[in-house]
Amino acid sequence: MASSSSTVKVGIVGGTGYTGVELLRLLSAHPNVRLHAITSRKEEGMPVSTMFPNLRGHVDLAFSTPENAALTECDVVFFATPHGVAMAQARELIDAGVKVIDLAADFRLQDTAVFEKWYKMPHSCPDILRESAYGLVELNRENIAGAQVIGNPGCYPTTVILGLAPLLEKKLVHTSNIIADCKSGVSGAGRKAEVSTLFSEAGDNFKAYGVAGHRHHPEITEQLTALAGEAVKLTFVPHLVPMIRGMLSTIYVTIKDDALDTDFQALYESRYANEQFVDVMPAGSQPETRSVRASNTLRIAVSRPDNGNQLIIIVVQDNLVKGAAGQAVQNMNLLFGLPEQAGLGGVAILP
Amino acid sequence: MASSSSTVKVGIVGGTGYTGVELLRLLSAHPNVRLHAITSRKEEGMPVSTMFPNLRGHVDLAFSTPENAALTECDVVFFATPHGVAMAQARELIDAGVKVIDLAADFRLQDTAVFEKWYKMPHSCPDILRESAYGLVELNRENIAGAQVIGNPGCYPTTVILGLAPLLEKKLVHTSNIIADCKSGVSGAGRKAEVSTLFSEAGDNFKAYGVAGHRHHPEITEQLTALAGEAVKLTFVPHLVPMIRGMLSTIYVTIKDDALDTDFQALYESRYANEQFVDVMPAGSQPETRSVRASNTLRIAVSRPDNGNQLIIIVVQDNLVKGAAGQAVQNMNLLFGLPEQAGLGGVAILP
Amino acid sequence: MASSSSTVKVGIVGGTGYTGVELLRLLSAHPNVRLHAITSRKEEGMPVSTMFPNLRGHVDLAFSTPENAALTECDVVFFATPHGVAMAQARELIDAGVKVIDLAADFRLQDTAVFEKWYKMPHSCPDILRESAYGLVELNRENIAGAQVIGNPGCYPTTVILGLAPLLEKKLVHTSNIIADCKSGVSGAGRKAEVSTLFSEAGDNFKAYGVAGHRHHPEITEQLTALAGEAVKLTFVPHLVPMIRGMLSTIYVTIKDDALDTDFQALYESRYANEQFVDVMPAGSQPETRSVRASNTLRIAVSRPDNGNQLIIIVVQDNLVKGAAGQAVQNMNLLFGLPEQAGLGGVAILP
Amino acid sequence: MASSSSTVKVGIVGGTGYTGVELLRLLSAHPNVRLHAITSRKEEGMPVSTMFPNLRGHVDLAFSTPENAALTECDVVFFATPHGVAMAQARELIDAGVKVIDLAADFRLQDTAVFEKWYKMPHSCPDILRESAYGLVELNRENIAGAQVIGNPGCYPTTVILGLAPLLEKKLVHTSNIIADCKSGVSGAGRKAEVSTLFSEAGDNFKAYGVAGHRHHPEITEQLTALAGEAVKLTFVPHLVPMIRGMLSTIYVTIKDDALDTDFQALYESRYANEQFVDVMPAGSQPETRSVRASNTLRIAVSRPDNGNQLIIIVVQDNLVKGAAGQAVQNMNLLFGLPEQAGLGGVAILP
Repeated sequence: MASSSSTVKVGIVGGTGYTGVELLRLLSAHPNVRLHAITSRKEEGMPVSTMFPNLRGHVDLAFSTPENAALTECDVVFFATPHGVAMAQARELIDAGVKVIDLAADFRLQDTAVFEKWYKMPHSCPDILRESAYGLVELNRENIAGAQVIGNPGCYPTTVILGLAPLLEKKLVHTSNIIADCKSGVSGAGRKAEVSTLFSEAGDNFKAYGVAGHRHHPEITEQLTALAGEAVKLTFVPHLVPMIRGMLSTIYVTIKDDALDTDFQALYESRYANEQFVDVMPAGSQPETRSVRASNTLRIAVSRPDNGNQLIIIVVQDNLVKGAAGQAVQNMNLLFGLPEQAGLGGVAILP
Repeated sequence: MASSSSTVKVGIVGGTGYTGVELLRLLSAHPNVRLHAITSRKEEGMPVSTMFPNLRGHVDLAFSTPENAALTECDVVFFATPHGVAMAQARELIDAGVKVIDLAADFRLQDTAVFEKWYKMPHSCPDILRESAYGLVELNRENIAGAQVIGNPGCYPTTVILGLAPLLEKKLVHTSNIIADCKSGVSGAGRKAEVSTLFSEAGDNFKAYGVAGHRHHPEITEQLTALAGEAVKLTFVPHLVPMIRGMLSTIYVTIKDDALDTDFQALYESRYANEQFVDVMPAGSQPETRSVRASNTLRIAVSRPDNGNQLIIIVVQDNLVKGAAGQAVQNMNLLFGLPEQAGLGGVAILP
Repeated sequence: MASSSSTVKVGIVGGTGYTGVELLRLLSAHPNVRLHAITSRKEEGMPVSTMFPNLRGHVDLAFSTPENAALTECDVVFFATPHGVAMAQARELIDAGVKVIDLAADFRLQDTAVFEKWYKMPHSCPDILRESAYGLVELNRENIAGAQVIGNPGCYPTTVILGLAPLLEKKLVHTSNIIADCKSGVSGAGRKAEVSTLFSEAGDNFKAYGVAGHRHHPEITEQLTALAGEAVKLTFVPHLVPMIRGMLSTIYVTIKDDALDTDFQALYESRYANEQFVDVMPAGSQPETRSVRASNTLRIAVSRPDNGNQLIIIVVQDNLVKGAAGQAVQNMNLLFGLPEQAGLGGVAILP
Repeated sequence: MASSSSTVKVGIVGGTGYTGVELLRLLSAHPNVRLHAITSRKEEGMPVSTMFPNLRGHVDLAFSTPENAALTECDVVFFATPHGVAMAQARELIDAGVKVIDLAADFRLQDTAVFEKWYKMPHSCPDILRESAYGLVELNRENIAGAQVIGNPGCYPTTVILGLAPLLEKKLVHTSNIIADCKSGVSGAGRKAEVSTLFSEAGDNFKAYGVAGHRHHPEITEQLTALAGEAVKLTFVPHLVPMIRGMLSTIYVTIKDDALDTDFQALYESRYANEQFVDVMPAGSQPETRSVRASNTLRIAVSRPDNGNQLIIIVVQDNLVKGAAGQAVQNMNLLFGLPEQAGLGGVAILP
C-alpha cells in the first residue's frame, strides 16, 4: 500500500545511466511519487540536472552516496545499477520494510545456476530470489502485487515473451524451432564509455552481436518454458540498430497441424484486451519503433503469409520505457495499489 | 475565456504534417482541452491514429473535410497548414466567435508589403492582421491575451528574438552587424515528399541553405527592429542538421563601448526570471538540443570570450514544440485564461 | 570484346537515381571505360555534376534525352531506370550490337508469368529474356560472359542467394523452412520523393515492411529452387534500417540429419576461395555493414549455435555496390573480357 | 626523393584511431607506397584487418611495438598518435634519415609558448620545430617539399585558413572581427571511448563546444596573422554534428570600404585555379559535406548578401581526409616528388 498520503517515497540507486535518467523523467512527473534520494558514489554532490540538463526545472536532487541513510527511509528503491549491486543491498532494505525493484538481472533468472553461468558471479541471496517476482506485469500481475522484491525483465525478453505468450499458453505452435531475430537501438548498451557504441562506430552501421550467446537468451527460455509447460528451443540473434531508442523483434514460429484453423488475430486481441500497455495492431500491420518512442506501450502485429503454417510476430517497444524504466514504474504502481497507468500516460514522440 | 466547464473545444485545420501531429500529441494530454475536429481534405475519413500510430489509444478522431461545420463550433482553431490557408478562412471563424491561431506565416509579418514579397501572394485580410497579435508570449503577453487572431512565430525567429531581446531592449549592442548562424533539424522542413529531405540526402550530411534569402529573415528583422527602436541589420544563415528535432542558434553581437561593464548573465537571468519556458543556463554553458527534445523549454546560454567586446548567445529549442506546436498551445492557454504551463509540463526526452 | 583500345564506351539510361550516381562514381574511375552518354528526359542539358556535386572534377557529361543517337554508339548501356524501361529499349540496342545491363527487374525473373504478377505489366520481349543471363557472377560466370543482355540481380537476392548457395548446391539443409530476415539501408528505396523515406520518417526508427509480399521474394525463390534442384519455401521479411547504405541478411536454416557432420566453415571457404568479391569471415564472426561501405565486397559469416542442427548465415554488402552498381560493373568486366576487379578495387570506407 | 623504385616505404605509429585507419585505406591503394610497419603497443600482434575489417584483403600487416626497428627502415613515418608522441620519437627518425609527418599538434604551432599553454606539456624539440614545415600544401608548397618534418594541420584550421587566404593575402577585409562558426562530424573527436561521443549522446543532437577555448583557435590565428601581416582577431565556435565524417565552416567577414568593388568570386577562382584539391564552387553555392565524403577535395563557396559589405565563406571538407589523413598523404607526395594527386583521386561517396 502507498503511504498514507498516497505518495510513494522513492529512492534510486545508480542514477547516472540511461535507465536512471529515464526513471527520473517518469517519476518526476508521476502524480503519486516523491523523489527522496538518488545515489552515485562517483558523482556525489552533483545536482542530477547538471548531468542531465533535460531535468533542469524538474528534479532538484543531487547525487548522494549509497551509504546515505536516505534509502532506508524510502517506500521503494529502484536499482538502475550493474548486475550484482541489488543483490548486495537488498537484504538491508527489505529488513527496513522497503520494496526493491531491480532493473538489472539479479532477480530475473529463477535458476541460480543459470544466473551464475551467464553473469559470472555467485548469487548471494537465493532466499530473496525465491520470494521475488518476475516483473512482467501482463503475465504475473498477482505475484508482483504481493512481492517485496521485483526482478524487472530484460528488454529483449519483454518483447519475445509477450509476443509468444498467447501462442504458448494455448500450445498452438511448435516449441522446438522458434526463432527470434531481434533489433535494438544503441541506448540498450547503456551509458558506459566503450568504443563499440561510439557514434562513429555504431552510426550508419548495422550488425548482429551475441550470436554465440547473450544473457537474455536463458531468461527468455526460462519464461517461455514455464508458459509452454514444456522445453522451448529458441534461436535468438540480437542486432544493433543505428538509432537511440527502440526495439523490434521479429519472431518466427510454426503452427501445429491441429491449430491451423485458429484465428490468431482474435487470439491476440482477446489475450491482451484488458492490457493498457499492450496494443495488438490490425492483422498484417508493420509496427514502427517510433510509434512507441518514449512511451510505455508495446505494440504487436501478427502476420501469416499466404495463410500457411508459419506465423510472423512483430513486436516493438521503447527499450528504455516498457523495456526498462517504464515497466519498473508499472511494477511500482502495482506494488502500491496505484492505478497501473499512473505516470505512464505519455504519448509516443513522433516524429 | 474558456467555456463554462473550463474545457476548450479545439479544431485543427491541416493535421497531416509534423506540427499537426505534435499539436495532437500535446492537446490529447491537455487537461483543459477537448479535440473536436481535425480536417484534411485529402485524408477525409481516415482515423488520425492510422496516419500517426503513436496516437493509437489517445486520439479517436478521424480527419474530416474543412467545409464541415464543426470548425465554427470550436472555441479555437489551429491552422497547421501551408501559408495562405488561414487568411482565407479566418474571417468566417472570427465572425462565429472562434479564436484563430495560425502556425503558418499569414499573421506574422506586420508589413503586408514584406509579406507579399516573400510569400508571393497578396495578403487578403490586412484588417484582421492589424488586430492580430504576434504570438511570442514572452514579449507580447498582454496583446496576445486579448487578441482574436494569433500569428504563431516562426521557429528560427523564436530563438533569435528571445536570444537578443534582453540586449536590444537595453540598447547594449551594436545593431549594424548582428550575425545569427542557425541550425535546424530536418523536421523543420515539414512532412512534404521532397528529394532534398530524404533520409539518403539529408542524413550523414550538413549544409547551409537559404544563404541568398530565407522567409524568416524579414520576420526576425521586423521584430528586432521593434525591440531595438532602430533599424537592425542581421546576417542570417540557416543550416540543416541530420537530426529530426531540434534547433540551435549561435548569435554573435558586438557590445557597445559604454556597455562593457554590464553583467550580461545577470541581465538575462533577470529578464527571464518569471518565464516558465525560458531557461537561462549558467554562464558559459553549452546547451544541447536534446536537452529540450519534445519539451516546450527554450534554453539560453551567454558567453563572453576573454571578457572582450563580443558576446555569443546560444539558444536551443525543439523546433516542433517551442518553435511551433508548443508555443501555439502556450498562446491558447493565454487566450483562455488557463495556466500558461497547462499541457506543456513534459520533461525533455534524453537520450 | 572491348573496342580496339580496350576502352569500353558506356552509356547510362536514367542516371538521376542512386544506382545512377554510383555507376558514375565507379565508371569515372574505371581504367577501361569512357563515359559516352547519360540520359534523363527530365534533366536534359543539366551537367551531371550539378545534380551530384561529388562528381565535380570527375564527370563532365550533361544529361541528354534518351532519344539521342549516342546510345547506339556505345559498347554497353546500363539501365538505371524504373522497371519496364529496359524492356522497351533493349531490342534497338541489341540490333545495333550494344550490350545491355539492366539494373531493374526486366531480365531477372525467368518466368514471365511471375514477372507479370509482381510487376503489374506484361513482359514485352520474352525472346530476349530467354537469351539473357542472370547477372550473379559467382554463380553464373559462363553464361554472363557470352550474353548480350544481363539482368542485374536485386539487392536482397544477391545476399540471400550467395548466402545459401554452398548449402543448397550440396543439399545439406532442409528447403521447406528457410527464413531470411533481411535489413536494408534507406538508399535501397531509391531517390524518389516519398514521405516514407523522408529523414524525419525513416530516421531514428526501425520497421519491417513488405511482410505481405516483396518483389524480391519470387526472384530469390526462383534462383534458390534452381540451385537446390527442388522447390524451396522461403519466409522473407525485409526491414528498413536508419542508415544510408548497407544491407545485412540473417538467414536461418535447419541442417539435414545426414549432414550434421559437415564442416560448414570449410565448405564456405572452399566454395568461394576463388571469388574476389566474396569474403568468408572466420567462423562465428559478426560482420558489419560498414565493413563493406562503398566497396564491392560481400562478406559472409557462418554460425552454428551449440553445434546443433541450426545454421545462422549472416551476409553483408553495400546495397548500392555489390547489390547494384558494382555488380553491374562486375558483369560489364566479364562481358568485355576485362579483369573482373577492374574499377572495383576500392577499400570500404570506415568509419 | 623516393627510393629508386619510386616506391616509398611507409611506417605508421599509432594506427588504431580514425586517422590511422584512414591512412591505411589511402596508402594501401597508393601506387607508389609500400606499407612497411604499423605500431600499436596495446594491440601488438593483432592483424590490422581484425580491428578494421574494411581492410580485409587489402592490408596484411599486424600491429608491432613502436620499439621495433622497422620504423627506422622506412622512408617516412606518419604519427597518428596523441599529442606529444611525435616529439618524443622524431629525433631518432630524423637521424636515421626518415621523414616525419605528424598528424597531431607537435609541429603545428610555431610559438612554443602557445603550444605549451594549450597542450599542457613542454615542447621537447624546438630546434626540430623551427626546421619543420606547416603542412598546408596550398599555402606552403615550397617549404614542405624541402622539409624533414611536417606538422599536418588541424581539421578546423584547414577549412578556415584556406577559406580566408585569398582575402587576407590581398588585405580586403577587416581583421578585427572575423567569425568562424564551424561544425564537425563526430569522428573528429577520435576513437577514444568517451561518454560524450557515444551514439546515444551525440546522435540526434546538436551542440556547440569549446566556446571557452579550443586548441585549434591559436593555430588558426597564428596562420591567419602570418597571411594578413597584421594581428587577426577571430571568434571561433566549433559545433558537433550528428554525422560521422564531414566539416563545414561558415565564415563571416566585413569587407573594407576600399575593397567593395572587388569581384570576390573571380578572386577565389584565380587564387585556387591550379589547386587540384580546392574546388571553388559557383557564386552563391551551398556546399554539402557529403559532396566531399571520403575524398581529399575541399570546396569553397562565396556569398555576398545583397551585394553589401558582408561576405559569407562556406567551406566543406572530409575531416578525416583533407582535414587529416588525405592531407598527410598529399604532404608525403610532395616530400617524395610524386604527383600531388597520387593515391588521392577517389571520388566522394554520395549518397
